[in-house]
Amino acid sequence: MTATDFRVIESGVRSEMKTEFIYVGIRVKDLEESIKFYTKVLGMKLTDRQRIEETKGDVAGLQSGKSGKSEFALELNHYDEDSPYNTKYTVGEGLDHLAFKVEDIDKALQLAKREGYPLLHEVKTKSSRWAYIKDPNGIWIELCLSST
Amino acid sequence: MTATDFRVIESGVRSEMKTEFIYVGIRVKDLEESIKFYTKVLGMKLTDRQRIEETKGDVAGLQSGKSGKSEFALELNHYDEDSPYNTKYTVGEGLDHLAFKVEDIDKALQLAKREGYPLLHEVKTKSSRWAYIKDPNGIWIELCLSST
Repeated sequence: MTATDFRVIESGVRSEMKTEFIYVGIRVKDLEESIKFYTKVLGMKLTDRQRIEETKGDVAGLQSGKSGKSEFALELNHYDEDSPYNTKYTVGEGLDHLAFKVEDIDKALQLAKREGYPLLHEVKTKSSRWAYIKDPNGIWIELCLSST
Repeated sequence: MTATDFRVIESGVRSEMKTEFIYVGIRVKDLEESIKFYTKVLGMKLTDRQRIEETKGDVAGLQSGKSGKSEFALELNHYDEDSPYNTKYTVGEGLDHLAFKVEDIDKALQLAKREGYPLLHEVKTKSSRWAYIKDPNGIWIELCLSST
């Protein structure tokens, strides 16, 4: 977990590259099952779906859709069996977790459990608490009250 | 790559859980080296840094900082050698890639190469092109012109 309040705490480093962080792409084993998890359980909205012949893959774009405008997206990547990108799947440590803010952790955990995604891990500090479930691919999903 | 234009293409699924996708956490081998890559090479701003005694870890929060307001964040997670979270590091396939929009791909690639991060892979379609470099942990970073 991290603060998302915008307050630059180190400004001594300059980059000539101007970038905008626009989405994170995760690889999924079963596209339909993953779309169902991120929409039905986590309440995201499916905003895009494309076939990419060049990679022999399918992508689905999801957003929280809170603002009604374009937001940071989660991209689900699925590759055909004969795609060169269809390497053996292990979740790995590159992706530590995806974090979702909720208003009521206990209620969110209850709903997730009902859909087949029980609480697997929890971290408690003096002032906060983060709960974790896993998506259908085994990716850690953090449910937290705020971003701090 | 995915469209980030907000247009819900499937709205038949209802969720009772109201969430907001607020950040993606990646695990890093060397916190300083990763902060340097995401700030100096990719131009992100360091907005948060915390020690979490409960996990024996350190986290750093980064944002593009384009809007001057709180945005979706990238969290770098580093764990001490004796942390229970310090499992053997392999990038894996869970995280497919992190995507950054740039105005000029060739110029961005030139700058990245100068910093020691050369072009490793490229996908070209009839209408678009995506270039990939790797971060200091071996995580794929996509540089793209737009979100479509």
